[in-house]
Amino acid sequence: MTDSSENKAADKSLSGAGRSRRDMLKFGSIATLGAVLGGGALLGHATPVSAQAAGKAELRPSDPLNILIVNYDGGTLLDFAGPSEIFHRLPNTNVRYASLNGGNVTLEFGVVYGNTERLADIDKTDLILVPGGSNLSAPMQPEYQAQIRRLAESAKHVTSVCNGSLVLAATGILNGKRSACHWAFVNKLSEYGAIPVPDRFVEDDNGRFMSGGGVTAGIDFALRVAAKLRGQQAAEFTQLVIEYDPAPPFHSGHPRDARPEIVAMVDKQLPGASRGLARIPGVR
Amino acid sequence: MTDSSENKAADKSLSGAGRSRRDMLKFGSIATLGAVLGGGALLGHATPVSAQAAGKAELRPSDPLNILIVNYDGGTLLDFAGPSEIFHRLPNTNVRYASLNGGNVTLEFGVVYGNTERLADIDKTDLILVPGGSNLSAPMQPEYQAQIRRLAESAKHVTSVCNGSLVLAATGILNGKRSACHWAFVNKLSEYGAIPVPDRFVEDDNGRFMSGGGVTAGIDFALRVAAKLRGQQAAEFTQLVIEYDPAPPFHSGHPRDARPEIVAMVDKQLPGASRGLARIPGVR
Repeated sequence: MTDSSENKAADKSLSGAGRSRRDMLKFGSIATLGAVLGGGALLGHATPVSAQAAGKAELRPSDPLNILIVNYDGGTLLDFAGPSEIFHRLPNTNVRYASLNGGNVTLEFGVVYGNTERLADIDKTDLILVPGGSNLSAPMQPEYQAQIRRLAESAKHVTSVCNGSLVLAATGILNGKRSACHWAFVNKLSEYGAIPVPDRFVEDDNGRFMSGGGVTAGIDFALRVAAKLRGQQAAEFTQLVIEYDPAPPFHSGHPRDARPEIVAMVDKQLPGASRGLARIPGVR
Repeated sequence: MTDSSENKAADKSLSGAGRSRRDMLKFGSIATLGAVLGGGALLGHATPVSAQAAGKAELRPSDPLNILIVNYDGGTLLDFAGPSEIFHRLPNTNVRYASLNGGNVTLEFGVVYGNTERLADIDKTDLILVPGGSNLSAPMQPEYQAQIRRLAESAKHVTSVCNGSLVLAATGILNGKRSACHWAFVNKLSEYGAIPVPDRFVEDDNGRFMSGGGVTAGIDFALRVAAKLRGQQAAEFTQLVIEYDPAPPFHSGHPRDARPEIVAMVDKQLPGASRGLARIPGVR
């Protein structure tokens, strides 16, 4: 789960017969951008001084960045797979995964995500990310909420993708804060005292709070987070490596563009969806 | 791992206290589109008769669709997380995951993907998807290659994302076929007798072969596959549900757009990348 395990794998393959060091360059090892550039190379994109006004100690691109992704049964894989693919590739960045009980979690559609740490074992993190899910019953439970609240309160950056913002909002930490959410659920944020903003990326308090819209918005969200915390060069580099040059075959990614009959199909299954008020298990 | 486990979870939550049936509508259960529309509703977008010329029995949108995603140590999560998020939501579609030995696989960056089946236990599949990875040593091994070749030969649709096409090509099944690949590796396809095409989505033999470019191209790839095999309405519906309305903050998703200094950074770590000839472990 750590860079060290990756390095071990790289060391292991280095012992393979008849391969030069160049052959061993891992596509994934592009993550170690800092090793090539030197840590200082990214400092040209330092966080603006104004951001320090938020009152939290501010991360500089040269400081190590610890990211925690919260997992739970019923979560949606792509909500965090986009961000994790980007975050793992950033210089001087460590990404961890944790759930209430640790070990495997069973995501939406029965997809199994493995080997998570226990939330209680994590002292603190610089950035916490709560992804969304098809069923929020688990992370809305008091034990989950307490752990998420504890880690969010001490984090420099409190973030979410999709309806993960509802989970964060339920802890109270988004009181009076602007937040994104999946388009079908965004207005429910107001039920928890947060301010719903129907955008793909939303920031408040100079970046202490950052959130993405539904599912795939996590990719755009993560690139913006990457630029803010590790510099624009690192973000652009990562975008190039993951070939994020989107070309959707249809214009159907948002109710403003989708054909009315397609929006009606969603409303039929999720009443209130096109008004941002769909119901989801585990959300009052 | 199956729809039935999802249904079990839904039944279980139905027993929760004080919740109406409407509350229980799962976001994920949008996958059961067919239950609302009836199987026939998608038939308006039937596969063109010309496609039957390919000589393989052709799937109609009303036929069940079995999809197999091949997993292996060193694979890249987002290469298949995009497609799986889309495929799971299609009507009358079953998605399975398998690796050589079954159980957990350790992907790039130490990410653990769990509970895969054994490839040898899978008799056949309608569609096989081979995602890419940062280290292809595992799927280039003879045992993996034999299983992938066996399943691909009998599949109606042979597909890949990113440099998964190199794994497929190494089996020989792409001989003389046009294929996509990640931009940094695409020209290596010719070393295996396939025809490199530097596009985000590539199709040959009337869709028997379909492939996506690097990493995030899997989302565009999967929407096209969805439209072809389950109808455009199902594809547009899925795009809306996953809010695929991309808005990259930078123009850096492909070497044609990225700043020269960013392309040079990739070339420094992966010699030959900008000529499509980067080396990757496990690829000759």
